[in-house]
Amino acid sequence: MIIHLKDGLTQEEIQNAADATQAIILNGNGVRLITPAKMKEPPTAIEPWVDSFHPTASDIQLASRGYSSDTRAVTIGDVTIGGTTGNSVVVTGPCSVESREQIFNVAEFVTKLGLKTIRAGCFKPRTSPYSFQGMGIKGLRLLAEVREQFKLCVFTEVRDATHVDAVIEYTDVIQIGAKSMYDHGILKACAKTTKPVLLKRGFGSTLQEFVQCAEFILSGGNPNVILCERGIRAFEPKTRFTLDLCGVSYLKEHVNLPIILDPSHAMGHAYGVGDLSRSCMAMGVDGLIIETHPNPKMAKSDAAQQLNFDQFEQLLGTLTPVASAVGKQVV
Amino acid sequence: MIIHLKDGLTQEEIQNAADATQAIILNGNGVRLITPAKMKEPPTAIEPWVDSFHPTASDIQLASRGYSSDTRAVTIGDVTIGGTTGNSVVVTGPCSVESREQIFNVAEFVTKLGLKTIRAGCFKPRTSPYSFQGMGIKGLRLLAEVREQFKLCVFTEVRDATHVDAVIEYTDVIQIGAKSMYDHGILKACAKTTKPVLLKRGFGSTLQEFVQCAEFILSGGNPNVILCERGIRAFEPKTRFTLDLCGVSYLKEHVNLPIILDPSHAMGHAYGVGDLSRSCMAMGVDGLIIETHPNPKMAKSDAAQQLNFDQFEQLLGTLTPVASAVGKQVV
Amino acid sequence: MIIHLKDGLTQEEIQNAADATQAIILNGNGVRLITPAKMKEPPTAIEPWVDSFHPTASDIQLASRGYSSDTRAVTIGDVTIGGTTGNSVVVTGPCSVESREQIFNVAEFVTKLGLKTIRAGCFKPRTSPYSFQGMGIKGLRLLAEVREQFKLCVFTEVRDATHVDAVIEYTDVIQIGAKSMYDHGILKACAKTTKPVLLKRGFGSTLQEFVQCAEFILSGGNPNVILCERGIRAFEPKTRFTLDLCGVSYLKEHVNLPIILDPSHAMGHAYGVGDLSRSCMAMGVDGLIIETHPNPKMAKSDAAQQLNFDQFEQLLGTLTPVASAVGKQVV
Amino acid sequence: MIIHLKDGLTQEEIQNAADATQAIILNGNGVRLITPAKMKEPPTAIEPWVDSFHPTASDIQLASRGYSSDTRAVTIGDVTIGGTTGNSVVVTGPCSVESREQIFNVAEFVTKLGLKTIRAGCFKPRTSPYSFQGMGIKGLRLLAEVREQFKLCVFTEVRDATHVDAVIEYTDVIQIGAKSMYDHGILKACAKTTKPVLLKRGFGSTLQEFVQCAEFILSGGNPNVILCERGIRAFEPKTRFTLDLCGVSYLKEHVNLPIILDPSHAMGHAYGVGDLSRSCMAMGVDGLIIETHPNPKMAKSDAAQQLNFDQFEQLLGTLTPVASAVGKQVV
Repeated sequence: MIIHLKDGLTQEEIQNAADATQAIILNGNGVRLITPAKMKEPPTAIEPWVDSFHPTASDIQLASRGYSSDTRAVTIGDVTIGGTTGNSVVVTGPCSVESREQIFNVAEFVTKLGLKTIRAGCFKPRTSPYSFQGMGIKGLRLLAEVREQFKLCVFTEVRDATHVDAVIEYTDVIQIGAKSMYDHGILKACAKTTKPVLLKRGFGSTLQEFVQCAEFILSGGNPNVILCERGIRAFEPKTRFTLDLCGVSYLKEHVNLPIILDPSHAMGHAYGVGDLSRSCMAMGVDGLIIETHPNPKMAKSDAAQQLNFDQFEQLLGTLTPVASAVGKQVV
Repeated sequence: MIIHLKDGLTQEEIQNAADATQAIILNGNGVRLITPAKMKEPPTAIEPWVDSFHPTASDIQLASRGYSSDTRAVTIGDVTIGGTTGNSVVVTGPCSVESREQIFNVAEFVTKLGLKTIRAGCFKPRTSPYSFQGMGIKGLRLLAEVREQFKLCVFTEVRDATHVDAVIEYTDVIQIGAKSMYDHGILKACAKTTKPVLLKRGFGSTLQEFVQCAEFILSGGNPNVILCERGIRAFEPKTRFTLDLCGVSYLKEHVNLPIILDPSHAMGHAYGVGDLSRSCMAMGVDGLIIETHPNPKMAKSDAAQQLNFDQFEQLLGTLTPVASAVGKQVV
Repeated sequence: MIIHLKDGLTQEEIQNAADATQAIILNGNGVRLITPAKMKEPPTAIEPWVDSFHPTASDIQLASRGYSSDTRAVTIGDVTIGGTTGNSVVVTGPCSVESREQIFNVAEFVTKLGLKTIRAGCFKPRTSPYSFQGMGIKGLRLLAEVREQFKLCVFTEVRDATHVDAVIEYTDVIQIGAKSMYDHGILKACAKTTKPVLLKRGFGSTLQEFVQCAEFILSGGNPNVILCERGIRAFEPKTRFTLDLCGVSYLKEHVNLPIILDPSHAMGHAYGVGDLSRSCMAMGVDGLIIETHPNPKMAKSDAAQQLNFDQFEQLLGTLTPVASAVGKQVV
Repeated sequence: MIIHLKDGLTQEEIQNAADATQAIILNGNGVRLITPAKMKEPPTAIEPWVDSFHPTASDIQLASRGYSSDTRAVTIGDVTIGGTTGNSVVVTGPCSVESREQIFNVAEFVTKLGLKTIRAGCFKPRTSPYSFQGMGIKGLRLLAEVREQFKLCVFTEVRDATHVDAVIEYTDVIQIGAKSMYDHGILKACAKTTKPVLLKRGFGSTLQEFVQCAEFILSGGNPNVILCERGIRAFEPKTRFTLDLCGVSYLKEHVNLPIILDPSHAMGHAYGVGDLSRSCMAMGVDGLIIETHPNPKMAKSDAAQQLNFDQFEQLLGTLTPVASAVGKQVV
């Protein structure tokens, strides 16, 4: 349950109300208390302090359309997605920053296409200790140069809590990867900034768990969370993961956060990324994130699924009419 | 491996060649032998009889694009899908035939919209013995009336081998449901007709197993198989199944059969069917199958997922521009 | 809800009571009606005919411990499992009957070990049309010879409804395979006999669906159903399936049918069958079914997972102390 | 590939050899290089420095039985598991430390039973921000008191990298939870100590990924890793997770690390924990971890699955004969 407290209460009164309801205190938009969902109305003792209260069906609270029906607007550089914008942001770039030349090459390409964002990882959550782990802080600095020179908004991933502050400092959109979705160290650090957070769904996680991770950020004070579905782990071995568009339908119906889809990681093979990207766009979502590399065969990670420049440019051309068909525009 | 035999061989020579290669004999398009996939070239003894041979990577043989690269054309009434048609057939109707009034009501609606097909089940593969099991042969007769009166092509499901001949007789397109995908009695009966077969993927089945079931029909002599992805069983409880569009990308790349998608069964809730249908159309597939009922709340099966007439009509209007955007037309 | 009717009602009264409750009529143990589970008490109109009634939480009705708490006793030849017997039957034999020599070889081996049952398939539900499909009716006749000569109880599988009567005639225990679990043609035929049925769980099926398939047989008049867990399809590629022992715990707690486990199909590799078999026995179940072949490498199906005679004999020796440790005895 | 270097090389030679093979340098047991698995023999240039080399089939390297066939011995307090000990350690305790009274109560109980270990969490990786998050550092201090007073070995969980040093300091066995399996911050910190690490399998993670996470710790210098299977996420809704004992068979065959199983989290219901625990013991594994609480109904987390003291004591009594039957002893 979310309780909107009246204005003008003392800190002590607020704390007492929170204690009485086992609630988290959220400042911003007035003072709100968020209690466990099983509580359905405020205890009598705190009624005098309550302006309004909003029971919720589950611990999807701040993110639920039941509490706030409109999709949140989240601003990324000079682009806003969600809200009433109809914007669908197409974010591309390589899996990993590999060198100055590589990332500048991509940045030029992206700029030429008129896009305003770029993605690339520096701290790679690899499954093997014996493969490329990313350029780390050096990569972040290259991304900072890219941002400065090309005026592109940068999306980059935080792998674990040990470098979350560095990523927050250097990036425009903090990406929390699928393997880190539950990382409380990251979630808490992201709650203390107001930079947008792209939270990817863990590939073994339910929608309920996914949105509840967003609640950690929202209830900690950062309202700018974007959800990213990137494929779940099902039993099919021919594709890397299984993109859960039924789940996206659920999220669109019940959750007020913008949604970006990642067909590249779901498919794991470049050949299917085109069809899937158009399919995702036709869901009417707020954006796509697609991996592109100057020379995919030589990529140090995710070589099989990255598009080359020609493939991406051709794909981008086909996304516009699909976006129009569902009342969206590509940005 | 598929071996094309030379013309003019005797029955005995053909049989000898088949025995020498542990092959199935397929008549039509000349005489072909289909050997286990591990065989990569014909044994010397039969070389004189061989016109050409086509090794395959797996037991996806007749259905593979490696063997025959173009999508097959399959004709349903006066509509052809696949091939070079660009047609995407939208098939709708109730989960079950429930009464004469109900199915005629739907048939009128479908006709008014200009569609040429209708779907409805008579033998329901219910999971409980204590719920409605379908109207059986009486339902088939009602569908025959509908076909006669409205000139609609009828899709209806066969549940098990005990009534497969009746379904084949009464229907235009034989639907093999997800729970019956492996039913060899059905597969063999469907192989002996040339009526089109809509083969649904078992919700616990891999793509390899799915297409291999199609191979049972194809290698038995019926070339008119359409694949239908209708959602697989993953771990997410908020939706009924998980529509596997990554899998569809795989099928489009590797398999030469037309593909129809079923968003209704995947989602299990009417609210998501619109977005998913547009998403499926944007995959550039050969058709959609969507459940519609005059009064979904009163439906005897699948009540939650069926659209009412207004919802379906509105959805249909939005499918046309998406189809256009990907070079398809709705039929 | 299960309604026990009073004795001495007319057929018409019984039929009226069934119509009033949308119920299935079950004869045996008096006359019982089984209504959809949502019905929680009999309508007033039929009260005079009701002896007692038993609401159930779901459409697991006849099989539920809520209705009948004791595990059913099912008799296989001169062995009884379930009930208060403490018996755990170990059934072994090859995946497929391949030849007279092979199956007699196995029968001798099994007899020498003092076991009383044998398993082997004749109609194989293969996933590819281009691999060995089983010996069919010839295999059944060989099994009949084995039964005659060695006095072994035979378990063999029915693949589809087209040969279910032949299997019922020739076998002692009718095995319904995982791929055929939903086959209504088979389920209905098995309901009309009283031969024991070993119903395997579909690898993509929930426990609820699994037990509801048993309800088709039970409510049709055959009380002798044994459940068989044989592995479900999860995402792990290193093993063939994932044996669901948590699910077995659920079944033991809530369902009154005996349970036999099949570690061979779950694992798919001979190396793990020993540990898994002991693990299954320690669950305190009513039996194991394990694949053994005179020469696994040459087996025409499931070569990787079958034990050779030495391996099986050694395993059997280790099962006895585990059985004792949990109060069971191997038969 | 693992390369054992000759003794007496200079730091520069070692570094050169590592650079030439893209290898990680591991000190201890001489100096070893671990290269990506695709490298199958050392480049000619470094041959003079090579003592022996060990190609591996995948990036399961240090943990593979191919490299080192015997199960590692890991010492926990005065108990050793693995190696040739035949010990199976039974670890119990509550999900969370909730109060001084509660944890001392459990410690007394455990001591009375003659067990030497205790488990309890202080940093809970909860899925909702609105439920109990654990006592944090206060809980760790209570565990330190327990260790001091009862001489019990303490297992406790690290949730994220922000408090990993505190957990390492206070605990005897560092538990990495399923949701944190991929946390590189934690893995790296655990690599720098030699305290034993209990690494739980992520519920959406393959066995390959699981063991590769262990490789991060092993290759960083800590040889004392114990694997813990605690259930994976499959589609079955009746149980919390699905305990993957087929996977355990794989691990026993291919991996040289000791294995502890966690039936409590897999099942999620107290009623199944007994059968599953006996089943796990019969796998011949190196230990069990089972949740016990003085008053499960009042537990602040995982209330449904915790045993009360009577249930646990009864269970423990039944584990001994099962352990004996498979050549193990409970410690």
